[in-house]
Amino acid sequence: MNDPQVDPHTVASNYLAVWNDPDQSSRLATLERQWASRVSYTDPLMSGETPSGVCSMIEAARGQFPGHSFVLRGTPDGHGKMIRFSWNLVSSSGNRVAGGTDVVKVDPDGKLADIVGFLD
Amino acid sequence: MNDPQVDPHTVASNYLAVWNDPDQSSRLATLERQWASRVSYTDPLMSGETPSGVCSMIEAARGQFPGHSFVLRGTPDGHGKMIRFSWNLVSSSGNRVAGGTDVVKVDPDGKLADIVGFLD
Repeated sequence: MNDPQVDPHTVASNYLAVWNDPDQSSRLATLERQWASRVSYTDPLMSGETPSGVCSMIEAARGQFPGHSFVLRGTPDGHGKMIRFSWNLVSSSGNRVAGGTDVVKVDPDGKLADIVGFLD
Repeated sequence: MNDPQVDPHTVASNYLAVWNDPDQSSRLATLERQWASRVSYTDPLMSGETPSGVCSMIEAARGQFPGHSFVLRGTPDGHGKMIRFSWNLVSSSGNRVAGGTDVVKVDPDGKLADIVGFLD
């Protein structure tokens, strides 16, 4: 059972919206509001430890896939402070070019604190 | 890329062997050797914080599925200190009764320190 403060679908949607935000200052503001000040983000290609570090990391990733967006795949689930969801990276014409599954730990303040990503 | 000390297939195989060990004292000895002394294990139904706590937790889970075993599904993957793998719980006649995906963090000594399980 998830903590009542932690809704998997909301966390997943907010998370993907950050990756899809093309504006760095807006993205950073969201990261500073929704993510912990000290975070651990790791996936097979990248890592980040602060909201600003993650913001730059996302900028670099987005730069490799112009016009693409991250789309939720399936139904997010979780328990306690843990949430799992899957996503596709799709081109502007809707072609899937990549996909993955992320596992997120939310801290006691409801902020994203620990994110581990895998490619599917 | 995984840390060279962390082989996803070995970690997954060792992990499932612990769940399949019917002998509590043998299981505890393996847990004390392969898992950290302070662990965090959580899934949607159970949690454990020490090797002996996890040992008892597994005993209770096994008691609900006599004659069943945990079988690796797919290919374990991971990066850095993180490993992901999926499993099926199958009856003695080979029927799948449940399945899940676990994400494991290995500590600097190569011991399992943080395990989050999800049901698929």
